[in-house]
Amino acid sequence: MPDSRKEHRRSAAASKENALDMQAIEGHVGYLLRRTQLLVFEDVIRALEPHGLRPATYSALVVIDANPGRSQREIASALGIQRPNFVAMMDEFETRGLAERLPSPTDRRSHALKLTERGTALLAEANKSVRAHEKRMAQKFTPEGINTLKAILRGK
Amino acid sequence: MPDSRKEHRRSAAASKENALDMQAIEGHVGYLLRRTQLLVFEDVIRALEPHGLRPATYSALVVIDANPGRSQREIASALGIQRPNFVAMMDEFETRGLAERLPSPTDRRSHALKLTERGTALLAEANKSVRAHEKRMAQKFTPEGINTLKAILRGK
Repeated sequence: MPDSRKEHRRSAAASKENALDMQAIEGHVGYLLRRTQLLVFEDVIRALEPHGLRPATYSALVVIDANPGRSQREIASALGIQRPNFVAMMDEFETRGLAERLPSPTDRRSHALKLTERGTALLAEANKSVRAHEKRMAQKFTPEGINTLKAILRGK
Repeated sequence: MPDSRKEHRRSAAASKENALDMQAIEGHVGYLLRRTQLLVFEDVIRALEPHGLRPATYSALVVIDANPGRSQREIASALGIQRPNFVAMMDEFETRGLAERLPSPTDRRSHALKLTERGTALLAEANKSVRAHEKRMAQKFTPEGINTLKAILRGK
């Protein structure tokens, strides 16, 4: 057997021997969710980077696009984002010309949010990258796994 | 019908009418994971607070306890924590008398980590609160949902 293969076997055995006992923590659903979420986010962060977006800003564009005319309060609350953080995000969108705050037709104290043409175009491009990311992830998640997450999120 | 019930019906109808369309974003597994993880963390953060622990510090105590004598590098890497963040965590543990860095018998440049008696006792108490948290969560997660998370985490 060549030395390099012997070396490989030896180090594989050593790394198995040195593996930590993670059973006690892997039984915890919060730990599993957090580590899995970080793994999935690593992939989507890479997918969104070329579009100048992060998971949070991408989600916000998706939800504004699907709900034009809604207020900052409504969009922030649906996304579970703190109001001041969402206002900062809208500032970023306006600076980049991706979304705008229009006067609300029903409430003088709030704005109606809407994507600009540039925002719609950027979202369409980002959606392509995210669809490729989802395809990679779909190989890892079972439909039951996805359904569990959806049920929990809807409070069932 | 009493006014308060009429009022209730009206506002329930209004809130349904005002519900945002979240379908486009709820189809994304990263979004589902992140929102679910935040929900579960809200519960475990409350469970750990009386013990002066956070999810990250609790996980570290569990893994040090299950793997006494391992190095900072090994524990940090198994938990997916950046090395400097883990060193700061160990500083916190030493200040509180929960864990200690002993001289490593095999490597002069590294330490062997170990829980103190106080750390073991605190972990036992925290485990009780976490078991109650896990019971609350078990009603929400299907075994298939849990298995999906485990399989992904193990890279399968």
